[in-house]
Amino acid sequence: MVAAKKVVLAYSGGVDTSICIPYLKNIYGVSEVIAYIADLGQGDDLNIVKQKALDSGASEAFIGNLVESFIENYAYPAIRANALYLGKYPLSTALARPLIAENLVATARSCDAMAVAHGCTGKGNDQVRFDLAINALGPDLEIITPAREWKMSREEAISYGEKFGIPAPVSKKSPYSIDVNLLGRSVEAGYLEDPMRPPSDDVFEMTASIQEAPDISEEVEIEFKNGYPIKFGGENLKSIELIKSANILAGKHGFGRIDMIEDRVVGIKSREIYETPGLLLLIKAHKELESITLSPEVIDFKEFIEKKWSQLVYQGFWFGPLKEALDSFIESTQKNVNGIVKIRLHKGNAIIVGRNSSNNSLYREDLATYSHDDSFNHENAKGFIYMWGMANKIWAESSLKDSK
Amino acid sequence: MVAAKKVVLAYSGGVDTSICIPYLKNIYGVSEVIAYIADLGQGDDLNIVKQKALDSGASEAFIGNLVESFIENYAYPAIRANALYLGKYPLSTALARPLIAENLVATARSCDAMAVAHGCTGKGNDQVRFDLAINALGPDLEIITPAREWKMSREEAISYGEKFGIPAPVSKKSPYSIDVNLLGRSVEAGYLEDPMRPPSDDVFEMTASIQEAPDISEEVEIEFKNGYPIKFGGENLKSIELIKSANILAGKHGFGRIDMIEDRVVGIKSREIYETPGLLLLIKAHKELESITLSPEVIDFKEFIEKKWSQLVYQGFWFGPLKEALDSFIESTQKNVNGIVKIRLHKGNAIIVGRNSSNNSLYREDLATYSHDDSFNHENAKGFIYMWGMANKIWAESSLKDSK
Amino acid sequence: MVAAKKVVLAYSGGVDTSICIPYLKNIYGVSEVIAYIADLGQGDDLNIVKQKALDSGASEAFIGNLVESFIENYAYPAIRANALYLGKYPLSTALARPLIAENLVATARSCDAMAVAHGCTGKGNDQVRFDLAINALGPDLEIITPAREWKMSREEAISYGEKFGIPAPVSKKSPYSIDVNLLGRSVEAGYLEDPMRPPSDDVFEMTASIQEAPDISEEVEIEFKNGYPIKFGGENLKSIELIKSANILAGKHGFGRIDMIEDRVVGIKSREIYETPGLLLLIKAHKELESITLSPEVIDFKEFIEKKWSQLVYQGFWFGPLKEALDSFIESTQKNVNGIVKIRLHKGNAIIVGRNSSNNSLYREDLATYSHDDSFNHENAKGFIYMWGMANKIWAESSLKDSK
Amino acid sequence: MVAAKKVVLAYSGGVDTSICIPYLKNIYGVSEVIAYIADLGQGDDLNIVKQKALDSGASEAFIGNLVESFIENYAYPAIRANALYLGKYPLSTALARPLIAENLVATARSCDAMAVAHGCTGKGNDQVRFDLAINALGPDLEIITPAREWKMSREEAISYGEKFGIPAPVSKKSPYSIDVNLLGRSVEAGYLEDPMRPPSDDVFEMTASIQEAPDISEEVEIEFKNGYPIKFGGENLKSIELIKSANILAGKHGFGRIDMIEDRVVGIKSREIYETPGLLLLIKAHKELESITLSPEVIDFKEFIEKKWSQLVYQGFWFGPLKEALDSFIESTQKNVNGIVKIRLHKGNAIIVGRNSSNNSLYREDLATYSHDDSFNHENAKGFIYMWGMANKIWAESSLKDSK
Repeated sequence: MVAAKKVVLAYSGGVDTSICIPYLKNIYGVSEVIAYIADLGQGDDLNIVKQKALDSGASEAFIGNLVESFIENYAYPAIRANALYLGKYPLSTALARPLIAENLVATARSCDAMAVAHGCTGKGNDQVRFDLAINALGPDLEIITPAREWKMSREEAISYGEKFGIPAPVSKKSPYSIDVNLLGRSVEAGYLEDPMRPPSDDVFEMTASIQEAPDISEEVEIEFKNGYPIKFGGENLKSIELIKSANILAGKHGFGRIDMIEDRVVGIKSREIYETPGLLLLIKAHKELESITLSPEVIDFKEFIEKKWSQLVYQGFWFGPLKEALDSFIESTQKNVNGIVKIRLHKGNAIIVGRNSSNNSLYREDLATYSHDDSFNHENAKGFIYMWGMANKIWAESSLKDSK
Repeated sequence: MVAAKKVVLAYSGGVDTSICIPYLKNIYGVSEVIAYIADLGQGDDLNIVKQKALDSGASEAFIGNLVESFIENYAYPAIRANALYLGKYPLSTALARPLIAENLVATARSCDAMAVAHGCTGKGNDQVRFDLAINALGPDLEIITPAREWKMSREEAISYGEKFGIPAPVSKKSPYSIDVNLLGRSVEAGYLEDPMRPPSDDVFEMTASIQEAPDISEEVEIEFKNGYPIKFGGENLKSIELIKSANILAGKHGFGRIDMIEDRVVGIKSREIYETPGLLLLIKAHKELESITLSPEVIDFKEFIEKKWSQLVYQGFWFGPLKEALDSFIESTQKNVNGIVKIRLHKGNAIIVGRNSSNNSLYREDLATYSHDDSFNHENAKGFIYMWGMANKIWAESSLKDSK
Repeated sequence: MVAAKKVVLAYSGGVDTSICIPYLKNIYGVSEVIAYIADLGQGDDLNIVKQKALDSGASEAFIGNLVESFIENYAYPAIRANALYLGKYPLSTALARPLIAENLVATARSCDAMAVAHGCTGKGNDQVRFDLAINALGPDLEIITPAREWKMSREEAISYGEKFGIPAPVSKKSPYSIDVNLLGRSVEAGYLEDPMRPPSDDVFEMTASIQEAPDISEEVEIEFKNGYPIKFGGENLKSIELIKSANILAGKHGFGRIDMIEDRVVGIKSREIYETPGLLLLIKAHKELESITLSPEVIDFKEFIEKKWSQLVYQGFWFGPLKEALDSFIESTQKNVNGIVKIRLHKGNAIIVGRNSSNNSLYREDLATYSHDDSFNHENAKGFIYMWGMANKIWAESSLKDSK
Repeated sequence: MVAAKKVVLAYSGGVDTSICIPYLKNIYGVSEVIAYIADLGQGDDLNIVKQKALDSGASEAFIGNLVESFIENYAYPAIRANALYLGKYPLSTALARPLIAENLVATARSCDAMAVAHGCTGKGNDQVRFDLAINALGPDLEIITPAREWKMSREEAISYGEKFGIPAPVSKKSPYSIDVNLLGRSVEAGYLEDPMRPPSDDVFEMTASIQEAPDISEEVEIEFKNGYPIKFGGENLKSIELIKSANILAGKHGFGRIDMIEDRVVGIKSREIYETPGLLLLIKAHKELESITLSPEVIDFKEFIEKKWSQLVYQGFWFGPLKEALDSFIESTQKNVNGIVKIRLHKGNAIIVGRNSSNNSLYREDLATYSHDDSFNHENAKGFIYMWGMANKIWAESSLKDSK
């Protein structure tokens, strides 16, 4: 039994969240379950999902169109942060969680609900991300997590659902556990739990295999303003169109697959497969543009910021004071990240073939050149090295003396 | 005029170091120039180089066979450090410099020379690496750097050389400035100074282009012991053979090219092209094996160590107390890095397809699984999240209160 | 009910751990409780404590003399790490926990017990430190924590104890919760929970107040070898004697009190009072000696190591792979930390009045001096600043151009 | 000979900068030297200094009243950054340099001068700070540094000056080299170059010795808003008055002396004595207030930011893109740093005796308390520790298995 009478449930249309509805009512004593369905560009027919929620006993069901916010307020900041958890995973699923939580809380407020619910299990990262984001935005709201507590096996859960008119899944269950949104797909479970077995082709939907990818390469120019992508292939595109174009082009050429051992928040290692073609392409281009527009010490230190940013987002701290402060740091650096990056897509590769910034390039051919136009003062090297190596030399002299 | 009468010169056989010989004698007043020629697997006929040194006026010329030491004492530690400067460059040239310096100092000692010399210019990184390494090992030795000081244009230098019997280069000068050793090739200058112009095919010698690379992929297993590669493709190989095999396989499939904007020690950005197929492959495999054998907090913190290690080596501090302490940290972590990584080479890609450690895997299928055999205690999640998110929730509650 | 029949309990002699004995037997169904009493120099009569354990129903009771190990294997590494959690707390209590855990596990092994128990509550740090250390050394051992689970108020606990012959505390309970060992005292609770109320004099036992401290200052020389303190006041002292001398001298002069807001592992802030005179004095002296014997980049980077070391120890990861690797780093740096530091104790202050290292000083008067004997080459400054400031100047030029 | 005809010289009134005037004109061929005299609260009569400049041959002399800007734009940001170089030095001198440079450049602009000059020598930090700040704000301006290049001994310099009517210093030269401004005094050289000799009393002017300090302690409340000090001792004070009050109170009680071995930018260690009573007091109070108003992970990460901030300012990068980004991070954190800190000053000590924030305290007595009002859920500890220690336990299990 919980205190709340009215609960807003994050509803996906899957059998687990469907079962949550009668379970919340019967076991937790909730009188009204309001289903909240987030449109993140996952491509399902959400009206069908909505009907399913009502059929499963929800008193109301809302579809929230979050796609634009997802790209502009979540994916774009991740691009500016060059966010790659463990140097690999661009957080495509992790980024969606605080956005859903934000809307769960808003829905709870507008419906006068005192609780929200989600169907996450107890060993994943998403429960942490949901709970922490809900706590941050609505610390007074109760959070109910039936699937973390019900201890039913999948079969038991399905037959529990059937008692309340929730049809058992007709098609053979996918061997995988999959999460999809406009940024990409996360796939795990099944034989993928064996870290020596590579994913077979049916794991992927957004990216071609290297074999399938065209023999002919293709080049694209991506333009950034203040660290935000604004043009793709020469065209000004709105955020959703831009990410879609990037997904299509990179996916066609087989770029954007990830196979990794990941350290989860709960302390275990898991094996994860991702495909996030567009997001990875944009991060790669963005980072390259920074290599020419940011000062060395900014590049160096921003790496710490990026690493921390990625960890915080992965671990559920999207809404929190440290994340906020890191964003301020990043904001300060991005005003100079203007220019274009040219990338060649070919057979799984995204090869940088050029980068330029008309107004903010810190690359100076007159200083870098080995030609006659060299404006670098070579004579200064001696003085530089004298002091640059001073402490090391003092150490060496001391060591020699000491060893005598 | 310098104080030293006898000087050991790092000699490559190129026209610049050749000119250094008469220049040292005539301008600096050195009476005896001893040429030291380092064999780093660059593939030149070093007996010809030796003769060139003598013809240019060297009183003696020594060839040092440094290949094995280069791989075992320099490349292998870099693999254990997952060393990638700016996340990209595996330091193939940088690693060679302290090794040459070490041997210059040893040669100076055995010849009773009080000075060493090298032909580096004043804006590159190599001068810094040479000078600092020499200072560390022989802080009493004078370092003479004619090319940093002579202010002759290339044409003037060549005609200066001709006066002393050093033939002008017959072949048309390469448009590039190139450094080669067994680990790879570094190419810069010429039209590559334009960061919008991609390198043409003549830049590369160790790696096939994606077009040229075979249509059929190839898989290889690499085995590591204590973080050192010991088997390649199932075969126990000595270090030199192992790196050669890795170079050949990765190069054949077009893996290992780098095109980057680099932040030099002297404060400028330069555009660099590298090909380091084997070294990059081994670092990638090693890092993957660590993802399954190292604890999350070790992986996380080792990244700081790795970044610092790479910077120190890039910046010339191979012989120094901080590098030594970082090596001790790394040594401590590598005792568990045992196992194999399986990689598929294909069209420029090196795709991890499996990783395993019989004795040191921290991946636990019984904890990670979504199947019935799950031994993870889901109920503990609630308590975990309560405390994991405690500080964030307190902050949120305080913020809400404050905003009222 | 727990699985284990025989349990080794960390026993302090206090009413809470005493009550644990009948509670373990009656509520958890344990048949044999073995009391382990750690001697950490806290100064209690441990034979009385032992008798108390037996009287409370323990089948056996062991006293472990851990003082020397505590200082040499726990406190001395902390000194080399300059370990100060949040820049203030030298971990005097935290260091004791893994040592006790180590001995609990050893006792369990020797007694064939399959479980260990401790009396920590659920919001402190010590439970985390105990549990993690026990898990690290005996991951197969069950850990039983009655006081974290029994939900009795203090009054209920006492009357529960009385039923089993455990006398209620006769003296008025101290208003504070106190932990004591040879390194210091930790005091919390009571009115100290108000962060605006300063501790009154009865909180402190090892340190004089500033008023009480002598008007006359006293100087002491502390000598270190490889980062370990070896002499105090000119005398070679064994570890226990050395820390005692340091406690007495610093305490007499009122040095070593800490009043701070601390971030606990469980996510809350708490207000803590410590007095750790000797340990703080030795850390201060050690750090000062490092300022003259370690290279600047080692000092700089070691700070990260120290911070992480302190956090790991505070948070319970004494036995863990990252702590081990950090120790290797520190070990590598300490071989040069040889020399003496002279400190003046006076009215709460420990003022460094001199530092010297005969063989490892990196301070070079000939380079630092403003006198005629200056051997520093001033002319090199121009070249140094040219390159040191190069990237910043390029950025400035670009910014000016951009703003036009 | 330099290109510029008109030069703005940073002028202090000392004999060295005075000599720079004829030297610039006679040796460098400058036709017009404009003296810029910065008022930083050093307490000299600057009209006398101005007359000295004109007497020494300056064509014009300007006094810039920079005190308010110094405190508000330089010292206050340092307080928010808890800036302590090497954990000790609050940058009192370092902060003044970019401010002077800013005004040198502005003066050069308004006078149409194409160069600026300063009298720093070649081994100090100030030359670096001046040069880098000037480069950042006026990268086109020439920087002339006579004292770094003239190679005259002090005696030679004085007699050179006498030839141009600059009187030799009449009083016996101070044994020290001293820099003074409103924030404090920096003292070095003379016998202080021996790190075993403590400073004698004549070194200090702003702070009493412990002996001289009153026997009676005094308490003061300092209030901060957004991380800025706004009240001192209950009074709203403007910045200059506030720092003066802090100087007087802390100085009277002997708080604020520093004696340290410092790692200079140019690679050498030097021994420095500072007294900065007010600034140190305010930093201490500010940091304490943060301990109660900032979230643990912000406190933890801000330490990295603070360390980098301090290094950048010490090393001359006040005006630079990384400093700017760090300031943005800090700004984001300071909005919650509101409240008061109560400090007791006594015999060299500044003891925190209370801290409170009405609206932003994250200290929660209901969670921290050991009393009956505890609202912390102890039962959650088990779940927390299960996952908090999960990875460490997996490692331990693997290690045990491996060692068998």
